[in-house]
Amino acid sequence: MAKKKKKKKKMAVIASSRYSSAAAGVDCRALVYRSHGDPAQAVQMEKMKLPALGDRSVLVKMLAAPINPSDMNMVQGTYAILPPLPAVGGNEGVGQVLEVGGQVTSLRAGDWIIPRDAGLGTWRTAAVFGEEDLIAVPSDIPVLCAATLGVNPCTAYRMLSDFETLKPGDSVIQNAANSGVGQAVIQIAAARGIHTINVVRSRPDLQQLTDRLRALGAAHVVTEETLRKPAMSEIFKSCPRPRLALNGVGGKSATELLRHVQSGGTMVTYGGMAKQPVTVPVSALIFKDVRVQGFWVTKWKREHACDQGALKEMLSELCALIRGGKLSPPACTEVSFQDFRTALHSAMEPFTSAKQVLVM
Amino acid sequence: MAKKKKKKKKMAVIASSRYSSAAAGVDCRALVYRSHGDPAQAVQMEKMKLPALGDRSVLVKMLAAPINPSDMNMVQGTYAILPPLPAVGGNEGVGQVLEVGGQVTSLRAGDWIIPRDAGLGTWRTAAVFGEEDLIAVPSDIPVLCAATLGVNPCTAYRMLSDFETLKPGDSVIQNAANSGVGQAVIQIAAARGIHTINVVRSRPDLQQLTDRLRALGAAHVVTEETLRKPAMSEIFKSCPRPRLALNGVGGKSATELLRHVQSGGTMVTYGGMAKQPVTVPVSALIFKDVRVQGFWVTKWKREHACDQGALKEMLSELCALIRGGKLSPPACTEVSFQDFRTALHSAMEPFTSAKQVLVM
Repeated sequence: MAKKKKKKKKMAVIASSRYSSAAAGVDCRALVYRSHGDPAQAVQMEKMKLPALGDRSVLVKMLAAPINPSDMNMVQGTYAILPPLPAVGGNEGVGQVLEVGGQVTSLRAGDWIIPRDAGLGTWRTAAVFGEEDLIAVPSDIPVLCAATLGVNPCTAYRMLSDFETLKPGDSVIQNAANSGVGQAVIQIAAARGIHTINVVRSRPDLQQLTDRLRALGAAHVVTEETLRKPAMSEIFKSCPRPRLALNGVGGKSATELLRHVQSGGTMVTYGGMAKQPVTVPVSALIFKDVRVQGFWVTKWKREHACDQGALKEMLSELCALIRGGKLSPPACTEVSFQDFRTALHSAMEPFTSAKQVLVM
Repeated sequence: MAKKKKKKKKMAVIASSRYSSAAAGVDCRALVYRSHGDPAQAVQMEKMKLPALGDRSVLVKMLAAPINPSDMNMVQGTYAILPPLPAVGGNEGVGQVLEVGGQVTSLRAGDWIIPRDAGLGTWRTAAVFGEEDLIAVPSDIPVLCAATLGVNPCTAYRMLSDFETLKPGDSVIQNAANSGVGQAVIQIAAARGIHTINVVRSRPDLQQLTDRLRALGAAHVVTEETLRKPAMSEIFKSCPRPRLALNGVGGKSATELLRHVQSGGTMVTYGGMAKQPVTVPVSALIFKDVRVQGFWVTKWKREHACDQGALKEMLSELCALIRGGKLSPPACTEVSFQDFRTALHSAMEPFTSAKQVLVM
């Protein structure tokens, strides 16, 4: 093992001494948008020449990158942060290090990496990134898990950790339970002994979806309609009222979640699929003392940019759950990189259960 | 001073030895409601016999008691806590101790007292209360200040202290700036060097109101309409964006307050005069990281019932502000106790600037 490490280090040093010839001028393909608009129209595949590998940069071959709703919003120009145009799409994904610059200390050839922050542009076959923009992840987890590790499971993990002190036996209620975040919440909560009450939209294959979420560890699966009905009180005969509500929808769905939260509890909003604001009865704030907050994993990562300990600890725990079979990637459809247009179309369809993942 | 104290103690001991003859059977008058409904109809003046003074109880002659919106909501039956019926109205006020039971240690004859909690029934000429239901206040402050000390100034004080760490030069935005709480916020904030941006409803005597709030220490007074206009940016040229918003209204007014709060700030809701929920854009929660919370002084007092230190410290600081001329009672109309019906009518009128205070 030690021998292998030494060998890798030597390779990296050799590589860095001839970096300019290895990376510079090599072609890669990238999914670029030059103006904001409908992703299916605005995104084009372009050939790009890789720049020279600097002392602190890293040549990466991308392995897989998902298409997330926030990626689409960035292309549409409606997201909170927008890279300068033209931009390469994609904020998440996993790549393998091919070569590192001479001053790079945290990575070596062969390592798997994911972006440290949003805006990296992961929809490409290869790239030269700055060392500080990447973080290593273990390469012994499935590639789809690594490609989807940095946003949804991290969002779920932090929301379950940072807002309420939850102990085994406590419960959490969430809408958008079938989203990438929702599925991660179910699994991370289950691993911690926390019951989840999962709200989904009614749909033709409801039983199938319910079964699938139950198999992930969901304690209860209810529809938005059930959420408004007295039937909910049945659940609370065997399950404590939730201290925490996780809202990815907004509008009426959020208000209904709040009704079931216990006094002094918190609702955390991380998404607004319904495109409607969160409406909170005044009495819930004053007399029930609920707190309404938001969470954005990008902000969390930026706030923790100088102290990577918390990020590394979280990734390590998430990878341990993955290895233990307790955290699977969301239902994914793998799409070959050149078929990106099909993937973009599919990602925009309503009731999309499977996340589109580009495989390079 | 020491001599006076000793004398008082002696009086109390003497009093307690003959308590049953002093209190029991003496008549008092109280404003009683036997069913929920329109306060002007439901509240009646009744004669009541005082019970015997127990070892741990205190005979109090009430001096003054305000009519607060929450008192009215209790009579109407719409408040979060409702005493069993029949009930004596009023949750706030100041009284003077006439006599104490033999085991009473925290109070003596001559002391001024205010209720420790809601629900005491302060609209009466005299009462025998439990020692634990009362807290002493200095008798060297104006009676109207003492009568209105326990709810509004305490609400303002806690909201300015417990949600954001504010330092001199910071700013706070609030609606309902002319309410009892609002006026206390202006004055306590000004005493701490904190700028207040005060939102009021447009009205015929707007200039007069503006002048009055400025005289209390308001840095800026704007109408609800101005709050929605670009003119607000003028204010923020000389005044930092508020870290804290205080909402006593709800509905659109609350949403507008939130628009002006700085990233990471907090909006605290303590009232809902507009009878509309608080509507929060999803983006404000996720990307601006605002927190939406509530505050209820009754809950705070109950949570601090076992440790009176924080309550005593707050009352002491508020009384120091009063003595220093930095905290005046809200505009009050003193109404003789027997004219309670006029006072109840006036309290229900819209745009009531003056708080009705019953004087016994």
